[in-house]
Amino acid sequence: MHDTAPAAKASAWLAQLAEALQGRDIPAAMELFAEDCYWRDLVAFTWNVKTVEGKPAIAAMLDATLAAAGPRDWKVTEASGPEPVDAWFTFATVAGRGSGIFTLENGKCRTMLTTLQSLNGHEEPLGRHRSNGVRHGADRNRATWSEQRAAEEAAYENGTDPYCLIIGGGQGGIMLGARLKQLGVPTVIVERNANAGDSWRNRYRSLVLHDPVWYDHLPYIPFPANWPVFTPKDKMGDWLEMYVKVMELTYWGGTECVSAQFDEADKRWTVMLRRDGRTITLRPAQLVFATGAYGPPKMLDIKGADSFGGKMIHSSQYLDGSAYRDRKVVVIGAASSAHDVAVDLWEAGADVTMVQRSPTTVVRSQTLMDMAFDIYSEEAVARGIDVDKADMIAAATPFALQPPKQRALYDRIRARDAEFYRKLEATGFLLDFGPDETGLMMKAYRTGSGYYVDVGASQLIIDGEIGIKAGVEIDALTPTGIRFSDGSEIEADVIIQSTGFQSMHEVVAKIVSREIADEIGTCWGLGSGTRNDPGPWHGELRNMYKPVAQENLWFQGGNLALSRFFSKFVALQIKARMESIPTPVYSTPLQ
Amino acid sequence: MHDTAPAAKASAWLAQLAEALQGRDIPAAMELFAEDCYWRDLVAFTWNVKTVEGKPAIAAMLDATLAAAGPRDWKVTEASGPEPVDAWFTFATVAGRGSGIFTLENGKCRTMLTTLQSLNGHEEPLGRHRSNGVRHGADRNRATWSEQRAAEEAAYENGTDPYCLIIGGGQGGIMLGARLKQLGVPTVIVERNANAGDSWRNRYRSLVLHDPVWYDHLPYIPFPANWPVFTPKDKMGDWLEMYVKVMELTYWGGTECVSAQFDEADKRWTVMLRRDGRTITLRPAQLVFATGAYGPPKMLDIKGADSFGGKMIHSSQYLDGSAYRDRKVVVIGAASSAHDVAVDLWEAGADVTMVQRSPTTVVRSQTLMDMAFDIYSEEAVARGIDVDKADMIAAATPFALQPPKQRALYDRIRARDAEFYRKLEATGFLLDFGPDETGLMMKAYRTGSGYYVDVGASQLIIDGEIGIKAGVEIDALTPTGIRFSDGSEIEADVIIQSTGFQSMHEVVAKIVSREIADEIGTCWGLGSGTRNDPGPWHGELRNMYKPVAQENLWFQGGNLALSRFFSKFVALQIKARMESIPTPVYSTPLQ
Repeated sequence: MHDTAPAAKASAWLAQLAEALQGRDIPAAMELFAEDCYWRDLVAFTWNVKTVEGKPAIAAMLDATLAAAGPRDWKVTEASGPEPVDAWFTFATVAGRGSGIFTLENGKCRTMLTTLQSLNGHEEPLGRHRSNGVRHGADRNRATWSEQRAAEEAAYENGTDPYCLIIGGGQGGIMLGARLKQLGVPTVIVERNANAGDSWRNRYRSLVLHDPVWYDHLPYIPFPANWPVFTPKDKMGDWLEMYVKVMELTYWGGTECVSAQFDEADKRWTVMLRRDGRTITLRPAQLVFATGAYGPPKMLDIKGADSFGGKMIHSSQYLDGSAYRDRKVVVIGAASSAHDVAVDLWEAGADVTMVQRSPTTVVRSQTLMDMAFDIYSEEAVARGIDVDKADMIAAATPFALQPPKQRALYDRIRARDAEFYRKLEATGFLLDFGPDETGLMMKAYRTGSGYYVDVGASQLIIDGEIGIKAGVEIDALTPTGIRFSDGSEIEADVIIQSTGFQSMHEVVAKIVSREIADEIGTCWGLGSGTRNDPGPWHGELRNMYKPVAQENLWFQGGNLALSRFFSKFVALQIKARMESIPTPVYSTPLQ
Repeated sequence: MHDTAPAAKASAWLAQLAEALQGRDIPAAMELFAEDCYWRDLVAFTWNVKTVEGKPAIAAMLDATLAAAGPRDWKVTEASGPEPVDAWFTFATVAGRGSGIFTLENGKCRTMLTTLQSLNGHEEPLGRHRSNGVRHGADRNRATWSEQRAAEEAAYENGTDPYCLIIGGGQGGIMLGARLKQLGVPTVIVERNANAGDSWRNRYRSLVLHDPVWYDHLPYIPFPANWPVFTPKDKMGDWLEMYVKVMELTYWGGTECVSAQFDEADKRWTVMLRRDGRTITLRPAQLVFATGAYGPPKMLDIKGADSFGGKMIHSSQYLDGSAYRDRKVVVIGAASSAHDVAVDLWEAGADVTMVQRSPTTVVRSQTLMDMAFDIYSEEAVARGIDVDKADMIAAATPFALQPPKQRALYDRIRARDAEFYRKLEATGFLLDFGPDETGLMMKAYRTGSGYYVDVGASQLIIDGEIGIKAGVEIDALTPTGIRFSDGSEIEADVIIQSTGFQSMHEVVAKIVSREIADEIGTCWGLGSGTRNDPGPWHGELRNMYKPVAQENLWFQGGNLALSRFFSKFVALQIKARMESIPTPVYSTPLQ
């Protein structure tokens, strides 16, 4: 039987909170929170993606937002316990309906998540609210579905301005486009590649998603039950292309964004696009950068590069190893792409050496599957935790509380795979688990780099099939290879720089201006004060999914899971602006 | 709270049946059945699609099948009551696992449905059994997903024979292809049109599905929650094209099947195909006709046709009315296509008259939605009845018991829409509800003709915007129009014969031989002894989804719902033969 005590406890607590908030009695509300408490709000109260930490910060947030948000109709929908009590709830604001999760420890709230789920009068046409698809009855002015679709597509080419323009038609842009479509926001997605899905197809031959299917669903059309656990890149490409068509997105392939300038007076962007050799100008109100979480390729500037007699490329240009059989190839870098490219080269018969410049967090894929994807799994689905529910669970833990949980997870992982790690380090490979031993996920949030989910490369390294050169600086290129600071040299016919990507704000610098890019600052990272993620502490991903220093400019991106979850909130923020719904952004003390 | 009494009652009854069958004690089993009883078996016991009616027939079926089927592990999974008790159950046979529904009236079984759901050792790779998608670890002989797919496609073109060939790549062929793919049956689908989905796209401009979305799902990838209630034809076309790609079916568009001969010795077909001007021969073991439920177009042979000065086409050739503005157009026929085409012509500004040769069953779309699609609706989904569950519920009522239920439904429909029907008949339109007042669905099963779901034409008829000529025989065509047996004439610039399609066995006559086609007999119909559905009573759709007089030849078709449900059983029957699992077909006293 179901234990009803946690639900009663949760309902009683929520009723007290509701009453305090109703009476604008913030001290009474704060009585309900634990000392070490966190409130993460996704758009519902703050019109921002924001975590406030501690009682004073929560009180300040409520003080600033309560009047405009007008929260009411709080209701616990599900709870588990006895200690801590985890409770799911719904609520309403002046603007729309929301849902959330809170956690009670000793009767006090430790963590609170509030999310906006829909805007009043602008609910998505889903389920019983779906469109009819046809106006029954005869109509001499009938436009069929295909005629309407064609007219819609033609309009943008003939001078009609979309409300929103998304630069970048990879997974992030596509998912946001799908959400905006459902909300009735006229949107054009522009993508440099010819077809939707090419951003996956154009990568190296053997690329397969490192995350499992349960974590990778797109909104509205989940992958079917026969979908493989790890999606091959071309299959992913086909799915995205299908998705764009079936969701009826306006998607301009082969289109490059040349420049974008914001007109402060009429609050529209003037965006110059180059499409099939023609220049097109669109004037959207909202501009979204969805060009990939990590911006343009980052290339090392190495002394003596001119003298190098071989070929040097970035890993994003690498397709397959067929041309490199029996050649000496050096891969600079030791994160995901570097490992995948090294395996691909080894499979093609190349002589591969990986130059590792800094330590890498490595986790075996099966280990992650067994220990880290518990809420994104077939077992979770069987327990009733579908992807939307899992996303909420994942979002309910504030970033500040994740390091201890992750550290504990990696203690278990290191114990389980001790022998594997011992052999890997014996090759000279520099292994770490992050500056505070918190592992892969925290590295992903903080810098998006420095980790590898092992799907085969590590064994090749352990077996000596892929060489490792680590722990010594690159000094210069020579005509025949690389010389290191200790005087040692390795030969190379080909060098592949698998050195990552620049922040998305570099794309803004190129398209909008350096001044505005710098005003906005870098994207991604939490402000953890660890290597490559300088403080101050930010508590959310910098500049992602929320208002930034430049109005009407947004960043959307991240892996499939983050793109899926946050695309909803980006779409709601944009839709609210389109409908002139007041969106007072709470952005102190941090952005 | 849940009433547990029906489940206990059902479980007790099923335990008695299990014990009787275990002991091969057929008289004891028959004690458990009501006098007027029915057992519908889909492949589990009979390796056939078969309803046996009454105790003697059920006893004979059990006597013939029990030893080979070896049913066991009967278990009630869900039941409702108190009277009648409807119970869902699962069971196992020697070959695989099954599920079913039975109904108890006064403690005795009135109806029993048993279905085979999977074959032991050949379960579909779904959910936790899905493929991994990648062999982790380095592999110098790795073939990527796209390389494997390309090799698979190329193999058939280079002489590898599929186990199964499906002629016809509309919805029926596609759904069966998808099921076979999951079961690992090498299959090629051939389709005359260039692309998957063209069978919908190539129809008349305004075509929209008359059935709602909840009834139309394809297996594996249900339509998303934003899908319109009534799918426009081109959107359906895009979905089918996407589906073929995503489900990785081998689909040869632009391919015509010229001939097919069965070799009795090696049990393979020799099939000649014409593809892009080339002739290709394939030798599949199993041949499926999925060329549309109703075979080739049926044209009336009308006296004086040579003298007619206008244009005469079949409705399947009609695309849109733009060329017919202000022209006099006569549509011969008064079923679905005739009505839709008449509206399309009226919308284009043509002067339209419908020549009605026999009475039509008309039901307003909204009325059907309100009264007949209760288990296929958003409300049903909210009650936990998804499409698979609804299909089982629909299958649980044997055809013999449907007329009284349908008659009662149509009594209510006629009362509700009395005014509408009065006005429609006042125009001279010949209205009926079938020979026994059972309405649209029974017409669909018996003859697949003679009905219209009103989505607008009837109001145009009532308003005199579409003319009606009914109740009089066509005598001959004249140079300027049609003359009737009463001497009256109507003028026509264009005549569109909306006169239906021939039985699928005519396609067999053309491709295989007239002899084999006649040996098989017509497809579709129940043997109801009503007009165009001669007896003897058959109790299932003739020749559909099951073994026919010609071995290794199958018919697949029907609307989206029937194609979806029965494709599973066709696929299981074919897979069993491929794996040499014994499939003793029980086919007495009726096929």
